[in-house]
Amino acid sequence: MRIAILAHEKFPDRAKTALGILRYSDDEVIAVLDRDDAGTRVADFVRDVQDAPIVSRMSDVDGPVDALVIGIAPIGGGFDESWREDVRTALERGCDVISGLHYFLADDAEFAALAAENDCELWDVRKPPTDLTVSEGIAADVDADVILTVGTDCSVGKMTVSMELARAAREAGHDAAVIPTGQTGIMIEGWGNPIDRVVSDFAAGAVEEMIVEKGDEHDYLFVEGQGSIVHPAYSAVTCGILHGAMADRLVLCHDAGREAIHGYESFILPSIPTYVDLYEDLASPVRETTVAAGALNTARIDDEATARRELEAYEGELGVPASDVVRFGAEPILEAIL
Amino acid sequence: MRIAILAHEKFPDRAKTALGILRYSDDEVIAVLDRDDAGTRVADFVRDVQDAPIVSRMSDVDGPVDALVIGIAPIGGGFDESWREDVRTALERGCDVISGLHYFLADDAEFAALAAENDCELWDVRKPPTDLTVSEGIAADVDADVILTVGTDCSVGKMTVSMELARAAREAGHDAAVIPTGQTGIMIEGWGNPIDRVVSDFAAGAVEEMIVEKGDEHDYLFVEGQGSIVHPAYSAVTCGILHGAMADRLVLCHDAGREAIHGYESFILPSIPTYVDLYEDLASPVRETTVAAGALNTARIDDEATARRELEAYEGELGVPASDVVRFGAEPILEAIL
Repeated sequence: MRIAILAHEKFPDRAKTALGILRYSDDEVIAVLDRDDAGTRVADFVRDVQDAPIVSRMSDVDGPVDALVIGIAPIGGGFDESWREDVRTALERGCDVISGLHYFLADDAEFAALAAENDCELWDVRKPPTDLTVSEGIAADVDADVILTVGTDCSVGKMTVSMELARAAREAGHDAAVIPTGQTGIMIEGWGNPIDRVVSDFAAGAVEEMIVEKGDEHDYLFVEGQGSIVHPAYSAVTCGILHGAMADRLVLCHDAGREAIHGYESFILPSIPTYVDLYEDLASPVRETTVAAGALNTARIDDEATARRELEAYEGELGVPASDVVRFGAEPILEAIL
Repeated sequence: MRIAILAHEKFPDRAKTALGILRYSDDEVIAVLDRDDAGTRVADFVRDVQDAPIVSRMSDVDGPVDALVIGIAPIGGGFDESWREDVRTALERGCDVISGLHYFLADDAEFAALAAENDCELWDVRKPPTDLTVSEGIAADVDADVILTVGTDCSVGKMTVSMELARAAREAGHDAAVIPTGQTGIMIEGWGNPIDRVVSDFAAGAVEEMIVEKGDEHDYLFVEGQGSIVHPAYSAVTCGILHGAMADRLVLCHDAGREAIHGYESFILPSIPTYVDLYEDLASPVRETTVAAGALNTARIDDEATARRELEAYEGELGVPASDVVRFGAEPILEAIL
């Protein structure tokens, strides 16, 4: 697929979905829409991802294009009316439009009519399938080893770590797949259940269903974790994934220097060993598992030596190997978990 | 309100909702519909609850009636077509119909038309409100002390314990209310959010919202817990309630003699002290709390002395006071938690 990514005014630092797609998707990105940076290129801002021109609007995207992806998510997940012209243009050109917003494009009368008229698909990835049901407790029966990323908080890098570990495992000759559970992962992989939007009774079941579907086709499944088991708002999602996945091994993801729950600053993060105990003790009555490795996000630390020291300290607290998968590579983690 | 309760072929042993309403609701139950036991009375089967005649069908219910409540829940939560005539008759008589089924009566074309025609309400208690959102982590700010029932499994008596504790607290002169989180509790109390049907991102928020709404009006809130923190399917619901409620104290509910997760028999229950540690350790980064009392359901033990011995053993494992609230009264628990 040839795709364009909408990221107005937010590329690259506040465009997590756009960056994830540029970094991990098999699709060819032919343009990024950001009216603030039109005329530059992706490579001017970010290395190690696909390069593409940055343009002002959909009508500036040259050549055939299969889909427009909404690559940013404003707080609250609403649709910004300043994007309407771009979505309209895409549909008029026969492009599908893929969105992870809470606002469902398929429920927008104008977009629905244009999509029908031009035979395009509106794919709202956050709209869960209607046939989900409760977990049977059978995810552990699949042939694949299941590795779940868990975190000390939201936005610590669980999706990135899952993608990097799967990629590194494949490069090492293993048959590995990602089980996507959130909007960016689903957009990158082209399928998946958005666990945060699933009815809470079906959260574990929606994870189990994906593992059962893919588990006999691969040697390793890397399940994208969500939230944190002690998050005041999102722990239900985390707990449903933990028990639904019945993982063989866990990788604990942390953002170097973070001391409180992001956006809930009065809630101080427990110690790293406390997280290890919480995840292992909570998982074990359903499926015995261990935190077998750690992933530390050191992106906010400029100095390499400081980042290395932080990583060593994190490994010391964990008692198992760890790495920053972007900065130092996935190998130390892979060695510990495969 | 004067209500009739539909419980065809399942009263009393498989009619948990009907029994809960008979035992705890302020509404006057004027009939129970069970075609297998027509001509008998509730008191022929159950003591210590409201008495009412048992009849075959809605058209046999005498006198004015405000609402028909569906008091049974078949596996899967579907609507049994053999009930259609009763619901139709109720709506034609101007009755509201209250249902906790997964099948929403308001989406049934015939019922919707009859309800509109006769100016009745179809209240599907399992349909969550559409304005729910994420938790802010503020439930602990209310004036009331918050007491949450947690369990070793589903169907161990959390709803009953919450109702009995609130009732006993009121009888002792305290201002106490129940925060209902499941269908039966919602039917009894006449309001509440069905947490198992809420989008998992909003599970904690839907509990918090209720506590914030009621928390400054009462001295004690008894939050009805759901599921178990190590249930292979439902732990997400439990975890969302645990962190959303930010309880001051927990009451651990257990069914005497249960050794494995009901319906998931390969999953053995951990020890009672393990449950205590899991609930306390998981809650504490969000809100420091303790298991301050236990509730043991001894309904399946006929012999009183055996029940008493089981209770003493349970207290020993817990290290805090416990009771069977139905058999031995709520006082030992109240003393420990108020």
